[in-house]
Amino acid sequence: MACSRFEYVKAFERHDRLLPGCWAVIRLDGRSFTNFSKAHAFAKPNDSRALRLCNAAAEAVLRDFDQHLAFAYGESDEFSFVLKRQSALFARRESKILSTVVSLFSSAYVFYWNKFMGDVPLKGPPSFDGRVVLYPTTKHLRDYLAWRQADTHVNNLFNTAFWALVKGGKSQRESEEILKGTSSKEKNEMLFTEYGINYNDEDAMFRKGSFIVSNLPSGRWGGEVSLKRTREGEAASSECGMAGGDGDGKFVTLHVDIIGDTFWNENPDLLAPSDLAPPRIPKSIGR
Amino acid sequence: MACSRFEYVKAFERHDRLLPGCWAVIRLDGRSFTNFSKAHAFAKPNDSRALRLCNAAAEAVLRDFDQHLAFAYGESDEFSFVLKRQSALFARRESKILSTVVSLFSSAYVFYWNKFMGDVPLKGPPSFDGRVVLYPTTKHLRDYLAWRQADTHVNNLFNTAFWALVKGGKSQRESEEILKGTSSKEKNEMLFTEYGINYNDEDAMFRKGSFIVSNLPSGRWGGEVSLKRTREGEAASSECGMAGGDGDGKFVTLHVDIIGDTFWNENPDLLAPSDLAPPRIPKSIGR
Amino acid sequence: MACSRFEYVKAFERHDRLLPGCWAVIRLDGRSFTNFSKAHAFAKPNDSRALRLCNAAAEAVLRDFDQHLAFAYGESDEFSFVLKRQSALFARRESKILSTVVSLFSSAYVFYWNKFMGDVPLKGPPSFDGRVVLYPTTKHLRDYLAWRQADTHVNNLFNTAFWALVKGGKSQRESEEILKGTSSKEKNEMLFTEYGINYNDEDAMFRKGSFIVSNLPSGRWGGEVSLKRTREGEAASSECGMAGGDGDGKFVTLHVDIIGDTFWNENPDLLAPSDLAPPRIPKSIGR
Amino acid sequence: MACSRFEYVKAFERHDRLLPGCWAVIRLDGRSFTNFSKAHAFAKPNDSRALRLCNAAAEAVLRDFDQHLAFAYGESDEFSFVLKRQSALFARRESKILSTVVSLFSSAYVFYWNKFMGDVPLKGPPSFDGRVVLYPTTKHLRDYLAWRQADTHVNNLFNTAFWALVKGGKSQRESEEILKGTSSKEKNEMLFTEYGINYNDEDAMFRKGSFIVSNLPSGRWGGEVSLKRTREGEAASSECGMAGGDGDGKFVTLHVDIIGDTFWNENPDLLAPSDLAPPRIPKSIGR
Repeated sequence: MACSRFEYVKAFERHDRLLPGCWAVIRLDGRSFTNFSKAHAFAKPNDSRALRLCNAAAEAVLRDFDQHLAFAYGESDEFSFVLKRQSALFARRESKILSTVVSLFSSAYVFYWNKFMGDVPLKGPPSFDGRVVLYPTTKHLRDYLAWRQADTHVNNLFNTAFWALVKGGKSQRESEEILKGTSSKEKNEMLFTEYGINYNDEDAMFRKGSFIVSNLPSGRWGGEVSLKRTREGEAASSECGMAGGDGDGKFVTLHVDIIGDTFWNENPDLLAPSDLAPPRIPKSIGR
Repeated sequence: MACSRFEYVKAFERHDRLLPGCWAVIRLDGRSFTNFSKAHAFAKPNDSRALRLCNAAAEAVLRDFDQHLAFAYGESDEFSFVLKRQSALFARRESKILSTVVSLFSSAYVFYWNKFMGDVPLKGPPSFDGRVVLYPTTKHLRDYLAWRQADTHVNNLFNTAFWALVKGGKSQRESEEILKGTSSKEKNEMLFTEYGINYNDEDAMFRKGSFIVSNLPSGRWGGEVSLKRTREGEAASSECGMAGGDGDGKFVTLHVDIIGDTFWNENPDLLAPSDLAPPRIPKSIGR
Repeated sequence: MACSRFEYVKAFERHDRLLPGCWAVIRLDGRSFTNFSKAHAFAKPNDSRALRLCNAAAEAVLRDFDQHLAFAYGESDEFSFVLKRQSALFARRESKILSTVVSLFSSAYVFYWNKFMGDVPLKGPPSFDGRVVLYPTTKHLRDYLAWRQADTHVNNLFNTAFWALVKGGKSQRESEEILKGTSSKEKNEMLFTEYGINYNDEDAMFRKGSFIVSNLPSGRWGGEVSLKRTREGEAASSECGMAGGDGDGKFVTLHVDIIGDTFWNENPDLLAPSDLAPPRIPKSIGR
Repeated sequence: MACSRFEYVKAFERHDRLLPGCWAVIRLDGRSFTNFSKAHAFAKPNDSRALRLCNAAAEAVLRDFDQHLAFAYGESDEFSFVLKRQSALFARRESKILSTVVSLFSSAYVFYWNKFMGDVPLKGPPSFDGRVVLYPTTKHLRDYLAWRQADTHVNNLFNTAFWALVKGGKSQRESEEILKGTSSKEKNEMLFTEYGINYNDEDAMFRKGSFIVSNLPSGRWGGEVSLKRTREGEAASSECGMAGGDGDGKFVTLHVDIIGDTFWNENPDLLAPSDLAPPRIPKSIGR
């Protein structure tokens, strides 16, 4: 066949298998989203529509890889998908996993744009970069998630204070100067005394980010139970449907604390199976 | 700061720099596109609209990374982007390059859907997987491109014959049986004698795939020159505009033979700089 | 300086850091040791002198990297060194760790040859190949060690039966035929009934391999304690001294079961620190 | 079989194949050789015996991998082995290639110690670390070799001047101060005017390092021809034999300029086959 003389070039492809037995996080970030959010006049400090659009794109990814992804966590224009440590998705080929997740997220972001952004016209195709990071133990994964949520907190408190100052008449430069070096406590106090904002009353989605997980098979997050466990109404029912069934209720989006132990203790299945379970071996890498 | 206790998890990120001095090909493939093309009733054996949509998505990628990508070659639902061997794009970080290219292509595919597919509704977000392959020398890269174009030829000749049989009344199973083991020559003859199809008269885009390259700065592919060089009118002027200027003429899409030496000899800049040029070192990897 | 024009070639070096937080096993194997052992007339099925020489070479490695290696396990011409999961040895650079361990082992093997092999002249420089394998959890590491010791058992039982047959007058080919497909039980019975060999009375070093570990700081394997814990006198005191102090007692070589839980339960420090300890981050990879 | 339950741990092994079509350099460095050379009272600034010992160890490596290694270049306690770009040695597995080369070099260094170092007792096993670096084109490889030889020149000129000062009565600290910031020209002049040393008359092995290459099949470096080509007697016949035939003449050690083009133009086979030759594909990586 005509192909055969050139086919040797396939030998230059690399086997980039993710180490078995590890948790893998696929993290995406919006590229040049500062400009993108300006161009589309996103609300400041947070645009609920844009955040729900991200959540919908993430749900499209979770739906497609339901057996392989444990859950996802997002904030701002960033999303982390957690691949189960036992998963043999695409024989754990890093490039294939990374590219497919980023592709589907990006594609879904555009696909659902109108549903969430209403009559705001999309001016051009946005893009996201991504990477895969391996975490050998559940402790490492918990610390990764805590790192992202702590980041959400720090950024959102800063942004809330910053935009309160700007909306109150300061220039952006002045606002930055005022906030430089202030503690969390000082920002909280300033918001309350000067602008009448109780930071803890801000939307939990802004303060805690969005944790998206399948409602099945345990049904844990449906009905009474979830309302009880996630105090103060922080559990949002899935607000965005995907192709083939809007609001099908398969996934729920929570805005809860994932730094402390409470959430994880109440939902032990999320990080199962335990370290001691024998890993399933990707078939194609046995040699 | 609250982050610091958990920030150690950043140390698990990997530096996945592409070897300097090599050509790198980023190749994308449509995921489950057999189903996708059925669901959207793509014409068989080739859907010109869908191919032009792919070309438009590829052009969006080329436009964004104009300094770094030498050119792109596509066929069917597959596209290969060639990163210049001297490029220091994203410090040559493989994950970042791969994910960004796949993301932008996917996003643009949805963004331009209506422009090319008219009133065919997009039923859900499509996705593409991707990989990066390194080629140390220009000889290797040329052979890679030849491999893909030979594949285009073999697949398209088969598909043209197959769908001629099906449209002529055979079942898909019968058609496969008839074609099994036939040579290129036999397929050509069958098309001509039984269906009056001269395969060489088929659309060059179907037979040769699409080679997309910047028209600037040399302007080589504009006007008379390109018509002369690409005999038989195989040069298509850029038919699809991107955000900010439809049909801006910055890129041209060619449907020419890239297996033989003629095209490359006539356009020596495409594969420059030569092996002997000292590579530019990505700044962040000097240690 | 004259160097600078060429120094860009350093940018082609790769950062091959081992994933933090994982156990890493550096496993060495003698290259062409079937020939090597024939050329030096090693006793069959086991040559105690040659095994002790391997153990001495391993001890030289452990001595040099005492803070970083947890222990080592060897059988035949193979040795596995276990890098502590928290170790930042050489910033966890894989090539540097692998090459240094293999180099020192090889060098020590020649250096101590005369001490263990007496007047057998070394006919040429032997060599060992090596690889590094990562294990994310302690369960995986335990299974790795069990895999190697199970291999020791299977190989040694076969070899003991094989050489009993050969010494009893069979040809090597006949002996292989006789043993083909026999169970462990059948080999044991044949050894006992036909050759009066009780396999369990064979030297524990042959049956169990050699587990080498630092005696310090706990001093666990000195004196009464070790004799009690390792029943039937299976604990061998360190029999081979290294440069700067023969028989310095810093390391002990045990021939014990490491498949079951008993040994590990009695020596919990060996696999500490636990999964939950925060890993130390290699300095040079913080970004 | 008893092994099977644990055998899954093999799936954690990584396929670390070197990119085909590239030159690969395996470079070794003595570990803590400043101390090692003091402990064994090596002559300063250069110890001819120790350098010849390194060359002999390198020759042992070249002999073992004669079909795969193009040549080797060494200086001080460092050696670079160049793997042919077409070589499929060990299916191009990086760990196996690196570990075997470092192992054999280290083992041979100890094995040949007495032959070269006479009655100097070896006090302990030395070790070498190593790494593999890929170079996509012959231009890159030439620049790598030029980098190492430029380094040899700079270091040796400094060391020659430094030890002339020290032997002339200066302290080591004073000597360093005197040389700080001096140019090559200034060092040359100081050596000549103050110590009567014409640097260009120093042993070519010290000034140029050692380039070791197989004499076969062309026999180029034997007899008259090599004397003519390597002017001023800089070609040293192979001075050190290996196991199985001392001084067998298979390899020659040259001390010539490898920065300029002359040497390479006169010996075009050394860097063949050219870039355009189709690479041989390692069998096991075809998928």
